[in-house]
Amino acid sequence: MSETDIEPTLNMLKLDNSQSLRLWLRMLSCTRLIENDIRQDLRESFDTTLPRFDVMAQLYRYPDSGLRMSEISRLLMVTNGNITGIIDGLAQEGLAERTTDGDDRRATIVRLTADGVSAFEAMAIQHRGWVDGLLGGLDDDEREQLFNLLTKLRDSLYAKLEKTDA
Amino acid sequence: MSETDIEPTLNMLKLDNSQSLRLWLRMLSCTRLIENDIRQDLRESFDTTLPRFDVMAQLYRYPDSGLRMSEISRLLMVTNGNITGIIDGLAQEGLAERTTDGDDRRATIVRLTADGVSAFEAMAIQHRGWVDGLLGGLDDDEREQLFNLLTKLRDSLYAKLEKTDA
Repeated sequence: MSETDIEPTLNMLKLDNSQSLRLWLRMLSCTRLIENDIRQDLRESFDTTLPRFDVMAQLYRYPDSGLRMSEISRLLMVTNGNITGIIDGLAQEGLAERTTDGDDRRATIVRLTADGVSAFEAMAIQHRGWVDGLLGGLDDDEREQLFNLLTKLRDSLYAKLEKTDA
Repeated sequence: MSETDIEPTLNMLKLDNSQSLRLWLRMLSCTRLIENDIRQDLRESFDTTLPRFDVMAQLYRYPDSGLRMSEISRLLMVTNGNITGIIDGLAQEGLAERTTDGDDRRATIVRLTADGVSAFEAMAIQHRGWVDGLLGGLDDDEREQLFNLLTKLRDSLYAKLEKTDA
């Protein structure tokens, strides 16, 4: 047991791993390895966290309209509770600001400030470089194949999850 | 903005998305969609959480030797702090037990109890079925291609991260 490896999880189980399960565990390994590396890079280079970077990335996409808390949660696919603390922190540091929705005065809209935009852009440029490095073990063709397969998977997941919700 | 989508994150950024960044964001979308669905299934079917399932899966792999807390953290690629609360819960419910390491009396070893093994197996069988369903949008050949590409990526990540640590 000499390296990080979440994969052989079910090897000893009294049922064989299905092809899909092996694939899912391998995808999870790749995602966690990359996420953990980026998490460490963000901490070392910007003294910030991955959830905070993700929230800023979403706010950055909506400079004019801003986003409601519930929209941020949905875009990031995480729970509202986690987001509140992050927005509090960003607001205290002058990187984000809250306003009231003109149409619905109970709803709070969040936007990045000009300082927040600059701070995010500085991080995003570095982030892109880290990701280029982490995925550099595949060549262009392999990355394209992987992208296409994941796109097909994502589309099938959207279709499946919409059907379940309906 | 009608569906959950973390991907176009950097579309508005004053730098183009690299091929690697697009790929990484797509991988992250797929992983989060699948994880969130499994999280919901675990809650509805077993009133349990994904981190708890993951911890039980690791303990299940080492019925004889058991695992130290630090080993569980490393295998799951998460921090020790999160694990402690989960082990406390499992111990209270009689699903895991702590013993002292014979060689190092300061170190605690954790194992699943017989009840824990049964509980995990019941969940693992369902879990495999959920994953089979979620990845059913790809055919056998596509899953095999995706598995092989992710294996190449994982191996390159291990090589890269080992080099960085050294």
